[in-house]
Amino acid sequence: MSRVITFTTDFGTRDGFVAQMKGVILRRAPGAVLMDVTHDIEPFSLREAALVLRGVVRYFPPGTIHVAVVDPGVGGARRGLVVRVYGQFCVGPDNGLFSPALDSAPEWEAREILNPDLTVKEPHHTFHGRDVFAPVAAALAAGTRFEDVGPRVTDPVLLSIPRPTSTAEGLYGEVIYIDRFGNLCSNLDASLLNRQRIRVIVGDAIIPRLSKFFSEVAEGQPVAVINSFGLLEIAVNRGNAAESLSVQRGDPVRVIWG
Amino acid sequence: MSRVITFTTDFGTRDGFVAQMKGVILRRAPGAVLMDVTHDIEPFSLREAALVLRGVVRYFPPGTIHVAVVDPGVGGARRGLVVRVYGQFCVGPDNGLFSPALDSAPEWEAREILNPDLTVKEPHHTFHGRDVFAPVAAALAAGTRFEDVGPRVTDPVLLSIPRPTSTAEGLYGEVIYIDRFGNLCSNLDASLLNRQRIRVIVGDAIIPRLSKFFSEVAEGQPVAVINSFGLLEIAVNRGNAAESLSVQRGDPVRVIWG
Amino acid sequence: MSRVITFTTDFGTRDGFVAQMKGVILRRAPGAVLMDVTHDIEPFSLREAALVLRGVVRYFPPGTIHVAVVDPGVGGARRGLVVRVYGQFCVGPDNGLFSPALDSAPEWEAREILNPDLTVKEPHHTFHGRDVFAPVAAALAAGTRFEDVGPRVTDPVLLSIPRPTSTAEGLYGEVIYIDRFGNLCSNLDASLLNRQRIRVIVGDAIIPRLSKFFSEVAEGQPVAVINSFGLLEIAVNRGNAAESLSVQRGDPVRVIWG
Repeated sequence: MSRVITFTTDFGTRDGFVAQMKGVILRRAPGAVLMDVTHDIEPFSLREAALVLRGVVRYFPPGTIHVAVVDPGVGGARRGLVVRVYGQFCVGPDNGLFSPALDSAPEWEAREILNPDLTVKEPHHTFHGRDVFAPVAAALAAGTRFEDVGPRVTDPVLLSIPRPTSTAEGLYGEVIYIDRFGNLCSNLDASLLNRQRIRVIVGDAIIPRLSKFFSEVAEGQPVAVINSFGLLEIAVNRGNAAESLSVQRGDPVRVIWG
Repeated sequence: MSRVITFTTDFGTRDGFVAQMKGVILRRAPGAVLMDVTHDIEPFSLREAALVLRGVVRYFPPGTIHVAVVDPGVGGARRGLVVRVYGQFCVGPDNGLFSPALDSAPEWEAREILNPDLTVKEPHHTFHGRDVFAPVAAALAAGTRFEDVGPRVTDPVLLSIPRPTSTAEGLYGEVIYIDRFGNLCSNLDASLLNRQRIRVIVGDAIIPRLSKFFSEVAEGQPVAVINSFGLLEIAVNRGNAAESLSVQRGDPVRVIWG
Repeated sequence: MSRVITFTTDFGTRDGFVAQMKGVILRRAPGAVLMDVTHDIEPFSLREAALVLRGVVRYFPPGTIHVAVVDPGVGGARRGLVVRVYGQFCVGPDNGLFSPALDSAPEWEAREILNPDLTVKEPHHTFHGRDVFAPVAAALAAGTRFEDVGPRVTDPVLLSIPRPTSTAEGLYGEVIYIDRFGNLCSNLDASLLNRQRIRVIVGDAIIPRLSKFFSEVAEGQPVAVINSFGLLEIAVNRGNAAESLSVQRGDPVRVIWG
């Protein structure tokens, strides 16, 4: 059966960097099925890439190999990793890219890429995506065992994702991600919101209830929903919440009970 | 033989939404061949998506499944559809996305997605692309019969595409689409233009004849051609007509005989 | 074994043009594996496309077919070509797109697309990508021999890539490409830089040494490296060199010995 390999990078699609990685893989694992997650991560934004990747991993078939390369430290001392999680593999730099996925997983195992047979002999110092991570992904797709990647790593770099705080009146969270539509994704998990009545405050908007879908409110009005990641999200029906509410990543999101 | 599944959305490629849909499909129909049409539809622009889709459908192999998701009404009362047209299948919300393709087709049949075995048990209210349309596309690719999708629909929502008017002096149309190059696609079909001599007026430009290709005129000059969709198009040779003629979607295009 | 077909265009991904080409190929060569290089080439920028393509070709498997369409002269007198180089095939207009790849290759052979059995009967004058180059790529993938494309061409159009000059004090080159990160790629090949000590001057910045990777310098500082194409590149660690140094394509890059 064909192995699926996905790509999550900040490389953009203009310069051919992604195509070089794909060519390397197709030479080494001709039957692999290659899928883009995104190449539009804001340059060097580890947290953005990590959140996108966390959202994607569990939807793919068992055995899928996720190559993620947002790598400002390329060529320096940072390690390269393969992480086994949810029956899948993540390949990339040890800089926190995989930590949200690990956070939510019941178990995982990480290995450092140290087997010299798997990579290009003298990897270019500015492009490990092409010379290290792509060849390792191809090797896994072609049958190399996870255990042969290198020694176990028990202390992968973890990103600090801001955690919400709770008071008697409600919850204090923040906007951790703004999507293409300008929808404001908070760090408030649905499991925290199981009260009957809530109000949501973000920017100048006070949203009087939790809705199920966007078009429950009139066009142009703000609406709070649980999004498809299971997190509280503020949108504007057929509009752009980030723009019309003038909210940015990191801005506070407040939930008030009753 | 592998089934082809295409994607036309306004999701962008930054957030991983498309990858979630693809993962869902690869789990359920591992051999499917996945092809992007575009994810850069202007958010909520049904007409833009519908025109792009109409242009693409008939070039694909028989049996291709086209998933189209521009879906501002997601989670509300709008129906989900599978439409069989040109020997292919279109899957998406019943909001007019498929009506230009239906307009031009000799015959078509539509069915409402009501078979609960084909979709996720509790589809998320804001992401039917992932939980309804992707699983239905995968089911069709894996052999589910069209007839098993749900009951027939004879009244799908139709988009009103503006129609040109005709006078003794010529034709009045409008710009219905502006492409990446700034080329101005009108709603004037080649079949309306079979006179020997025409002039075309758009913005401040008067174009004295119909050309076959762009470089018939000098660099930077406006030029009128029949485009690859069979519609009258105004371009600027090696330039951007929308910018240099200051023309927007909806602006008039006039053809004068002789 | 499946043949790989890649795409390099200035079509963008919004309008469905690329999907039309892919549909045409999937009808004629159902097993072909289709890979995007990029569709984000600046409209009509032959040099940008040519440099991206040169960087990509040799990473793909033998027999890969690279379709490249940046084609301002479409429909006019310019020829269509298939070029065999590095055991692979390039398909597109004869306007210089392939010349950097040919420059660096030990040998190549070009043929003009004149076999009418391989293309659409009456190709649309504004879209040879769909009606000429895609069908020819599909034909090659389906087994048509290179020799059957048409007669040999010994004088393909060549792009003039600016060449550096050398003095006793050092080298004068220029910025030939700026990538997504704002990194400034020069036309100075690593082979010209084998002195022990160099300084690099670009814009207002004087960079005192050649580094191996970006994070050798402090965040926000300029750094000179040999990039993954083997060319001298000026970057800013975790920043955008084009923006912070106010440098554009064509601006001078100077290397001073010692």
